[in-house]
Amino acid sequence: MKVDGVAYRSIWREGDGAAVTVVDQTLLPHRFETLTIATVAEAIDAIKRMVVRGAPLIGVTGAYGYAMALAADPSDANLASAYDALYAARPTAVNLRWALDIVRAEMEPLAPEARAAAAFATADRLHAEDIRTNETMAAHGAALIREIWEEKGRSGPVNILTHCNTGWIACVDWGTALGVVYHAHDQGIPVHVYVDETRPRNQGASLTTWELGAHGVPHTLIADNAGGHLMQHGAVDICLVGADRVTANGDACNKIGTYLKALAAHDNGVPFYVVLPSSTIDWRIGDGVAEIEIEERAPDEVTHISGIAGDGTIVKVRLAPKGTKAANPAFDVTPARLVTGLVTERGVAKASREGLVALFPERG
Amino acid sequence: MKVDGVAYRSIWREGDGAAVTVVDQTLLPHRFETLTIATVAEAIDAIKRMVVRGAPLIGVTGAYGYAMALAADPSDANLASAYDALYAARPTAVNLRWALDIVRAEMEPLAPEARAAAAFATADRLHAEDIRTNETMAAHGAALIREIWEEKGRSGPVNILTHCNTGWIACVDWGTALGVVYHAHDQGIPVHVYVDETRPRNQGASLTTWELGAHGVPHTLIADNAGGHLMQHGAVDICLVGADRVTANGDACNKIGTYLKALAAHDNGVPFYVVLPSSTIDWRIGDGVAEIEIEERAPDEVTHISGIAGDGTIVKVRLAPKGTKAANPAFDVTPARLVTGLVTERGVAKASREGLVALFPERG
Repeated sequence: MKVDGVAYRSIWREGDGAAVTVVDQTLLPHRFETLTIATVAEAIDAIKRMVVRGAPLIGVTGAYGYAMALAADPSDANLASAYDALYAARPTAVNLRWALDIVRAEMEPLAPEARAAAAFATADRLHAEDIRTNETMAAHGAALIREIWEEKGRSGPVNILTHCNTGWIACVDWGTALGVVYHAHDQGIPVHVYVDETRPRNQGASLTTWELGAHGVPHTLIADNAGGHLMQHGAVDICLVGADRVTANGDACNKIGTYLKALAAHDNGVPFYVVLPSSTIDWRIGDGVAEIEIEERAPDEVTHISGIAGDGTIVKVRLAPKGTKAANPAFDVTPARLVTGLVTERGVAKASREGLVALFPERG
Repeated sequence: MKVDGVAYRSIWREGDGAAVTVVDQTLLPHRFETLTIATVAEAIDAIKRMVVRGAPLIGVTGAYGYAMALAADPSDANLASAYDALYAARPTAVNLRWALDIVRAEMEPLAPEARAAAAFATADRLHAEDIRTNETMAAHGAALIREIWEEKGRSGPVNILTHCNTGWIACVDWGTALGVVYHAHDQGIPVHVYVDETRPRNQGASLTTWELGAHGVPHTLIADNAGGHLMQHGAVDICLVGADRVTANGDACNKIGTYLKALAAHDNGVPFYVVLPSSTIDWRIGDGVAEIEIEERAPDEVTHISGIAGDGTIVKVRLAPKGTKAANPAFDVTPARLVTGLVTERGVAKASREGLVALFPERG
């Protein structure tokens, strides 16, 4: 997608070199800077510090990081230990494990000296596949937006509510939920996006607003608390969110607060769709609320916040009294019963085991 | 309630003077300072700038401000225009109108020269009544907490989730929802409070945490997004919130985001109580979602935030890209069907017209 009219991706190799360049997402929206990752340690650090974020981008970054590890030491021992080290950088991201599993499975049979080049080639393939998958998924989702627009008699924009950041900056290009928005917008369907700020890390306020603004999509920032009220008053036509993990039953684990919006959508008859590449589906588990362990992040993400001061410096300020204890669960699980549908690269599935298996019969 | 062991109220007259002293709530939790209000213009400014906030405190401040206006000019013309000016400072606060109506009705029959002293006496009476009302309400609510504690076999604390600030600092003393917490705590029932930060103005993160800490009540700050997840996992025994306005049907208009917590409570079988003095009931309206006009506040409350920097200065920082458009509805309406009960100074009512009239038969 575009930044000031120039097409960008969130991660790319410079030529066929052994390093990748990424957009440093910790500086957005205040500064647009890139960062070069040349070692597995830098890749782990980038995942941990959320320089790169979003399930698909974390997967691709993990694959490149794994290739860098094998370039430094292609032994069987390192094939195992680099996997563990990368996986531990973000254990809840199923795409990370998915990408690491692919690289490991393809490298294991190879002679150590062949592994580095082959691993980079695999990472390049995942990079290309991610773009293709997201564009296909976006097209399926945009058909839903078009349908709503037709139902509204093509009057006014389609009002979309979204949570967190699920745009191109979270993937390689396009995005998941936001990819749908871009696809509809680029087709000329008038859209307007209500952007949840998404406390505590404010990915909506900082990244989604920045992306939409840079690409030219009309949008309005709201506090996470406001979405229910907007839905009560008919201001939202559809909710589109991403997912960190979707279970075989169709339960969706996504950024904390998603469940509350799904409840409000259900209470007000607003369609609620989760947009996800099938790599996000964890076929091994069924009941998401009972079975998914939720990452507890640092309390200072709740008690403190960063922003740009009047003088242009980025400042971290404390919001709560000194020493206030905080809890910070990073994700929640939206039960399938609250999800209207799952938008995947193969089309839109009902949020149920039957719905998913109908689209992915190889899993039946 | 207490600050460092000293009992405070949020507003008081020094002797029988014509001014009042208030706690400046815009500086909390970073600084504990008081401010003197000596004119009606200062009272209006304090209400508008949220130096004083919380429905009951706004009512009492309005009454004192009205008395100050009549001290300056006790004419019939000023009796009318001061009412309008004070009312316009916060039109959604039904307690403000309620207090102004009482003062006006009592002053109208009086000769102008008798009005100032009489108006101060009326304001003093409202001040005393508010304390008495809140303490009674808190006792009724604390009985619910005790019941839960007994049901839990007196094992572990009763976990309470609350939204916004409804403590003594929002009233004259005690508070509404938080008054219940103090009453239970002071009786020796172990309680633990999950405090919603309450974006965009963060009254939970700044004021509720400060109050609870100052009085010694165990608590944990959470992002507004986290409550649903906690309720899914059995971490919340009861939700207690306040209200800006409750309709004759039992719909509760309260700080934006309350509705989302009520949905989550309902979805997880967690009791959800609204704690309110009966002065908060707007008997003239029934359907809160359809009939209550929601105040839209300044967008920079969403795009910017204030906190304390490392060097101890209070800094306002921007969270979103420059020029980001934001919407900022200040309240939402929780339909009565999601409310387990209404805790009032006369006891606990079912959230329905019948329930309310059973407690307030004079309104039947």
